[in-house]
Amino acid sequence: MATKLQPAVIAIFGATGDLAHRKLIPALYEMSAANQLPTNTSILGLGRKTDITDDEFRSQVRKSIRDFVGSDSEELGHWCEKCIHYFGMGDSGPEDFEKLNEKITAIERTFDLPGNRIFYLATPPQAFGPTIESLGEAGLNSSEGYTRLVIEKPFGHDLKSAEALNDLIHKHFREDQIYRIDHYLGKETVQNLLAFRFGNALFESVWNREKIEKVEILVAEELGVEQRANYYEKSGALRDMVQNHLTQLLTLTAMEIPTAFKAGHIRYEKVKVLNAILPIHDEDIVEGQYTEGEIGGEGVRGYKEEDGVKKDSKTPTFVSLCLRIENWRWSGVPFYLTTGKRLKERRSEIVVTFRRPPVTIFKPEEKNRVHPNVLVIALQPNEGFRVSFEVKKPGSEIAVKTEWMQFSYADSFGPLPDAYHTLLYDILEGDQTLFVSADETLASWRLYTPVLHSHHTLYPYPAGSWGPKEAQKLKG
Amino acid sequence: MATKLQPAVIAIFGATGDLAHRKLIPALYEMSAANQLPTNTSILGLGRKTDITDDEFRSQVRKSIRDFVGSDSEELGHWCEKCIHYFGMGDSGPEDFEKLNEKITAIERTFDLPGNRIFYLATPPQAFGPTIESLGEAGLNSSEGYTRLVIEKPFGHDLKSAEALNDLIHKHFREDQIYRIDHYLGKETVQNLLAFRFGNALFESVWNREKIEKVEILVAEELGVEQRANYYEKSGALRDMVQNHLTQLLTLTAMEIPTAFKAGHIRYEKVKVLNAILPIHDEDIVEGQYTEGEIGGEGVRGYKEEDGVKKDSKTPTFVSLCLRIENWRWSGVPFYLTTGKRLKERRSEIVVTFRRPPVTIFKPEEKNRVHPNVLVIALQPNEGFRVSFEVKKPGSEIAVKTEWMQFSYADSFGPLPDAYHTLLYDILEGDQTLFVSADETLASWRLYTPVLHSHHTLYPYPAGSWGPKEAQKLKG
Repeated sequence: MATKLQPAVIAIFGATGDLAHRKLIPALYEMSAANQLPTNTSILGLGRKTDITDDEFRSQVRKSIRDFVGSDSEELGHWCEKCIHYFGMGDSGPEDFEKLNEKITAIERTFDLPGNRIFYLATPPQAFGPTIESLGEAGLNSSEGYTRLVIEKPFGHDLKSAEALNDLIHKHFREDQIYRIDHYLGKETVQNLLAFRFGNALFESVWNREKIEKVEILVAEELGVEQRANYYEKSGALRDMVQNHLTQLLTLTAMEIPTAFKAGHIRYEKVKVLNAILPIHDEDIVEGQYTEGEIGGEGVRGYKEEDGVKKDSKTPTFVSLCLRIENWRWSGVPFYLTTGKRLKERRSEIVVTFRRPPVTIFKPEEKNRVHPNVLVIALQPNEGFRVSFEVKKPGSEIAVKTEWMQFSYADSFGPLPDAYHTLLYDILEGDQTLFVSADETLASWRLYTPVLHSHHTLYPYPAGSWGPKEAQKLKG
Repeated sequence: MATKLQPAVIAIFGATGDLAHRKLIPALYEMSAANQLPTNTSILGLGRKTDITDDEFRSQVRKSIRDFVGSDSEELGHWCEKCIHYFGMGDSGPEDFEKLNEKITAIERTFDLPGNRIFYLATPPQAFGPTIESLGEAGLNSSEGYTRLVIEKPFGHDLKSAEALNDLIHKHFREDQIYRIDHYLGKETVQNLLAFRFGNALFESVWNREKIEKVEILVAEELGVEQRANYYEKSGALRDMVQNHLTQLLTLTAMEIPTAFKAGHIRYEKVKVLNAILPIHDEDIVEGQYTEGEIGGEGVRGYKEEDGVKKDSKTPTFVSLCLRIENWRWSGVPFYLTTGKRLKERRSEIVVTFRRPPVTIFKPEEKNRVHPNVLVIALQPNEGFRVSFEVKKPGSEIAVKTEWMQFSYADSFGPLPDAYHTLLYDILEGDQTLFVSADETLASWRLYTPVLHSHHTLYPYPAGSWGPKEAQKLKG
């Protein structure tokens, strides 16, 4: 199916960087190969270096696609030749943005494009402000077609910085031009959360405080800090994962049913959830930092021994929180958010535990032997759903055993598209549903900023464990 | 685990018949092999023929176990030698029952048994009355231990005959001595219905008129009337399957939560369901009779061409009913009961269809494209549970697709024990939970007898189909 979208110029700041080469360019190529990219859509790589030619950049692009998509062909060569361009921004001075404008206009003229422009900020966060400012001052915040601005995370590092960034953006762009990326929202299973909730009356009708005992959201990583110590030392687990990804999972899980499946309605409901969360007390949070240990049979270093980490680092690599959503649907139901690096295995899931039967009619003396029903929405590694339920063990005795009904996404649909594929398509389409609104960023930072500024004990945990034992106590 | 049950004499009327050899004796042997039969429990085969010796009967028993359990061993020989006996009842006159008493007493003396006696009526139904009468008159309705009476189906052929049979039984036996067999109740998956309902708050909390649209109970047979035309011509589908098996499935599905998992409590709730069913109107029932057709690629005869069937037979081999349970839990929810011979495949299941979401927020114009959640409790051929639910199809568009979460009993537990194994164990244990009470038999016949006495169109359907098309119209 050829797309009905209009062609655009997609200008990527940070085009020689990791994100562009590992994710954005491969996703754009896959979209093109799937006929989802409008004909003549042009990709303009932007970087500091002025001595890279179009052809050099095209070779880099071709190599990325070989490496990360695993395909190479004559068509790929033609595509690069026609659709990939490069422009060196040098010091990113006002005159560089003037020239950028000329470059884009030239591409638009060559390909007879309607003036649709997407500026994708795939740069380190310190470049966000100056780039947005310069785009605005150069008049690149509007064009004959649409102009859209895409911002990668992190979106600020606390409430104040997020407010400043939003203010700056809104000085030059309207909110409906802004696409704040949280790539978790591009994952099929995360979007499926909404389809699952609002397409299945069986589950939605029990989705409340009366039927649900607790909700646990886990994003466990096996990896350590890798090459990102410089960033991570200033960030830590709460900023890196909780404020954005886990909070997105939380709001999608807890939100009321929106009036329509449209960006404005959904964002409104998500913000309502965030605003209903009670302030986080010190006893509701446990932070940890990994020490040396073993993962998959191999010894690994502790966080403090990682390259680029200070020997006395106080940066948490693990955090577990108990949140309370004080509204009619959720009052009294704890939401546990847990994430950490160097945990036992890579696993992301939302675990909804239903209340037990009020009465145990088989063997009342063994009340605790009847387990509650649990719904697991697995995000990785094996995307799918499973529901635990009690069945009778065969035999004369009425004894129950917990079993699972399962569904695996991959079994039914094969490999899922990459999150960036989905998100880029939505940006071209102008659908903001899967992007984070200004209000959301602020509400989220409003919730977590006090936690960031207060002091918590940092519990060590060995790499390859499930985090500090103290985190279990949170759950009482 | 050796059983703690007390040993008994199990006297089987009709011991040379099909049921005894295919089901009862194999089940008793399996129980013995599994150490579930108390030591010295003796099986006394009773038949008309007086010229069969113990040894001849033992050879028959050994052959049945070879044929239907598939095992033979020296231990089996010893078991037969020690535990299997035969007694010829001749004309079943008073003196024959006197001698039976002596025979049992002799066995009890030999094996030092405490006087527990089980009389199992595995005879044609016309022998039930006289046998019960004779047992009572010979004083065999009580003993030093317990005396229990087991009655196979059919339990009467309408309300009047069922009342007469119950009256006769109660003249000689107390209700707590009676074990009316409906072998469906011995199936693990049928028992599991209760464990599933009362062990899983997730499902029990939606088990009502507000959340459920309809319930369908299907018992489809591939077989035709086989060698049973003589019986079946007088019975038909309603008596043969609906009044007993399907109605049991219905009551277990619809019953309120009993106060305890004990026979009295469960039977009470089952009767309550039966008493709440509205009278069945003519427009609530469709009957059919199979004509020639094809099953599994092979041509098969029509019912009227079967051996022993009258050429102008009016016996229904298919019936579909819509029942209304007029109580607070179920008012307004139709229960469809359907059974038939020579249907497309052998399949028994309970299908619970939940209500659709009240609002379709993805593509409201395609309201009917969102399917309701369906819970299927599969009884055969693959016992298990599955729940359908809507998931999002991968891709940019929000389109939903129906998928299933599944659980297969066999995958988790391996082959299930035979129903008779379960039921015989419960009889030895004195647990009436899985047996049909007098009140249940009467309530069920009270419901169906008017239907039996009224005239319905008999729709032909080709063997290998799903029954007459008219049955679909029942479901509106």
